[in-house]
Amino acid sequence: MQRLVLRESLFFVANPYGETQLKPFSPSLKSMSATLVGNALVAQSGGPTAVINASLAGVINAALNYPDEIEEIYGGLNGIQGILQEQLIDLAAESQQTVRALRYTPSAALGSCRFKLRREVDFQRLIEVFKAHNIRYFFYIGGNDSQDTADKISKHAVAANWQMRVIGIPKTVDNDLVITDHTPGYGSVIKHVATTVRELACDAAAMGQHDLVTILEVMGRNAGWIAAGASLAKRRDHPSDAPHLIYLPEVAFEANKFLDDVARVLKQNKYCFIVVGEGLVDKDGNYIATSSAATDSFGHSQLGGAGDYLKSLIEQHIGGVKVRSARPGHTQRAAATGSSKADNDEAFMAGEAAVEAAINGITDKMITLVRGETDQYTCETGLADLSEVANGVKRIPANWINEDGVSLNYQFAKYALPLIQGEVAVTREQGLPAFAELSKIQVERLLPPHDFE
Amino acid sequence: MQRLVLRESLFFVANPYGETQLKPFSPSLKSMSATLVGNALVAQSGGPTAVINASLAGVINAALNYPDEIEEIYGGLNGIQGILQEQLIDLAAESQQTVRALRYTPSAALGSCRFKLRREVDFQRLIEVFKAHNIRYFFYIGGNDSQDTADKISKHAVAANWQMRVIGIPKTVDNDLVITDHTPGYGSVIKHVATTVRELACDAAAMGQHDLVTILEVMGRNAGWIAAGASLAKRRDHPSDAPHLIYLPEVAFEANKFLDDVARVLKQNKYCFIVVGEGLVDKDGNYIATSSAATDSFGHSQLGGAGDYLKSLIEQHIGGVKVRSARPGHTQRAAATGSSKADNDEAFMAGEAAVEAAINGITDKMITLVRGETDQYTCETGLADLSEVANGVKRIPANWINEDGVSLNYQFAKYALPLIQGEVAVTREQGLPAFAELSKIQVERLLPPHDFE
Repeated sequence: MQRLVLRESLFFVANPYGETQLKPFSPSLKSMSATLVGNALVAQSGGPTAVINASLAGVINAALNYPDEIEEIYGGLNGIQGILQEQLIDLAAESQQTVRALRYTPSAALGSCRFKLRREVDFQRLIEVFKAHNIRYFFYIGGNDSQDTADKISKHAVAANWQMRVIGIPKTVDNDLVITDHTPGYGSVIKHVATTVRELACDAAAMGQHDLVTILEVMGRNAGWIAAGASLAKRRDHPSDAPHLIYLPEVAFEANKFLDDVARVLKQNKYCFIVVGEGLVDKDGNYIATSSAATDSFGHSQLGGAGDYLKSLIEQHIGGVKVRSARPGHTQRAAATGSSKADNDEAFMAGEAAVEAAINGITDKMITLVRGETDQYTCETGLADLSEVANGVKRIPANWINEDGVSLNYQFAKYALPLIQGEVAVTREQGLPAFAELSKIQVERLLPPHDFE
Repeated sequence: MQRLVLRESLFFVANPYGETQLKPFSPSLKSMSATLVGNALVAQSGGPTAVINASLAGVINAALNYPDEIEEIYGGLNGIQGILQEQLIDLAAESQQTVRALRYTPSAALGSCRFKLRREVDFQRLIEVFKAHNIRYFFYIGGNDSQDTADKISKHAVAANWQMRVIGIPKTVDNDLVITDHTPGYGSVIKHVATTVRELACDAAAMGQHDLVTILEVMGRNAGWIAAGASLAKRRDHPSDAPHLIYLPEVAFEANKFLDDVARVLKQNKYCFIVVGEGLVDKDGNYIATSSAATDSFGHSQLGGAGDYLKSLIEQHIGGVKVRSARPGHTQRAAATGSSKADNDEAFMAGEAAVEAAINGITDKMITLVRGETDQYTCETGLADLSEVANGVKRIPANWINEDGVSLNYQFAKYALPLIQGEVAVTREQGLPAFAELSKIQVERLLPPHDFE
């Protein structure tokens, strides 16, 4: 089986101030690999983003271009969990209108899951499902846990002598996948967060005579990428712009320094604007606030409450201030209206690139986004080994965080600004976004029910 | 002085599916009143909205049309609080570019306050400021407390024999002002909330295998208008759409009924979506959750935490469910991007109408919005006595709430749907909204400093 890097295969130029321009697809590498004929299956996994459906739309669009290789294009409901139960739908049966709307519909239209494959019997069942439905192409859109899952599935297919190509498509608002320059979903969430900071800053400025502190708690379990993205709201030539203080999981939290920071900002400004990542930790690596002791099925702590914790610290230790704390929660990753066109375009491209790669004989890879080295932002797709991506975590480079520990330097802005350019055109009905709903035509079940864990 | 109803003076037709059409201004009534020549002062008060600056832009636009009557157009910073300190700025000095951007800038660009005039010495000082700067027209954009303030100021001016026309311009996201059909600011906040519900519902649906409960806590101190507005997210022919349960301050909260409601929805749906107004009260009228015992300077309780309270109720009493609680807080009222064009147009018109009314000899009135009686939504401006508006609270009509107490009927949708039509075009810079900043050219102070409370 051919293994080659497809870096040149898809290439587009995102103009920070205008339309993203797509360059034509490079000469096909198809002749270099043996043709594999069968059906394709695509599924989504992990926490949704504003653009995970754009990647799905990209897969559907590209798959329809290869009728000689891909006979049917199926969707697996609720990731691996639904595939185990043979919950496959016929994506070719969806209307073109639906697929177009899908591109701008937030969250995972196929349904998602946080299910970790552990039992050998489950892996065997998956291979049975693949064999029964002649699945020769498997595309899994997800974060690092999902890439790990895709990797293991591929190894089991090889062991079972089932020829299948497996390509991962990156997705996470957290932007913590390794190897890829950035991850689809990230641009939209930080565009939403930075927009919210600008809007809330107007609100705080109007009431600024009250020594007002505004706290915005944002998502981000292990890395502060989302909190860092809030820094884009501050104009370079306006140092008094919000946000004034950004607390990242990358920097150990110290309550005394925090209170000093707030007092200092309140002396300099009419108001203080704080952005805090939900995953803030102390010097021992313990979360400063957990809403409950629960952990998800991957063993990650379920977080919340960092903003309210900072609010209580200020109220207890600094007199005469009024503190507001907002916790938009999952609205951040679901905000499709006003989301980033650059991000959406890249998510769609990643979906298309996955199909192109598989058709060209590639397997066991995740599509990556590769930034060009020119001053003008460009982005191509590349490939990374699934096993390399699985369970790695990319943190913000330490030298992008200023010495004060609560602000980001120009290197971060240079990195992040191209990712939030442009706005998608969400279809509206009666003043509200009209999101796609898949009709979900079930593919006939061919196997007995699975004893599901 | 003439007192006549200006119902015909401004008239526009909002097309629910397209552009708002402005009808030409009716024949001037100017000849009917004595001409009053002097300066105009406009100020903003209370909690900001996404469109309070659109009303300010309307005042500026209209005032510049009457150079024979209005010589200078000043802005008072931070409402009455700044005017007491003679903090007046020259609004005619602002660039046209700024005034254009102002229309789509959230919050109060002049600054706001929550200051209650109590001392006789403060009223006297205000009249001194008016006299010193020859203020003959005073426009106060605010909610019921602000209309009360405007009313008292006008009475003091009369007592001091200072001829001045005082017009209030309505503003509040809470939509609880009496007499006016609805209030500028309301349409934008419910468009934002209903959009958020649609987006979060996509997120919840994707993860729907977990008996997931999503709680969205929305603003609304005394009335559930904002929570009710979330019901617009539900399509009429899709009863399983979110939101499934809406808890309004108008309906006394009972924990047992709530838990039954949630359990019932979780039986019928894969997930349960709850919207709760921050001002939820029990049968004795006590708030079910308060984040602190603090009250603002008007004696209103400062609220928060209703969503987290419901979350804890569910976690304690219903097993096997996962509960998410989002509290977007002030982001709701600050969300200018994606805000309602109909709302913005009406806010601007209300500002213009205030100037027209005052030029035509009207005083001691607040501009109201009057809905036409045709099937096609139309809206004209009208007038209400300031004293009638002051401190009244409009609640949702009981017969708009269904018997289940947790949903709204078609009468509410008919009322609210026209208010969320269209989206404003916010100027962008590098992917983020570019909001107006007033240059705030201070008008020369003519009085000694005031002994400020």
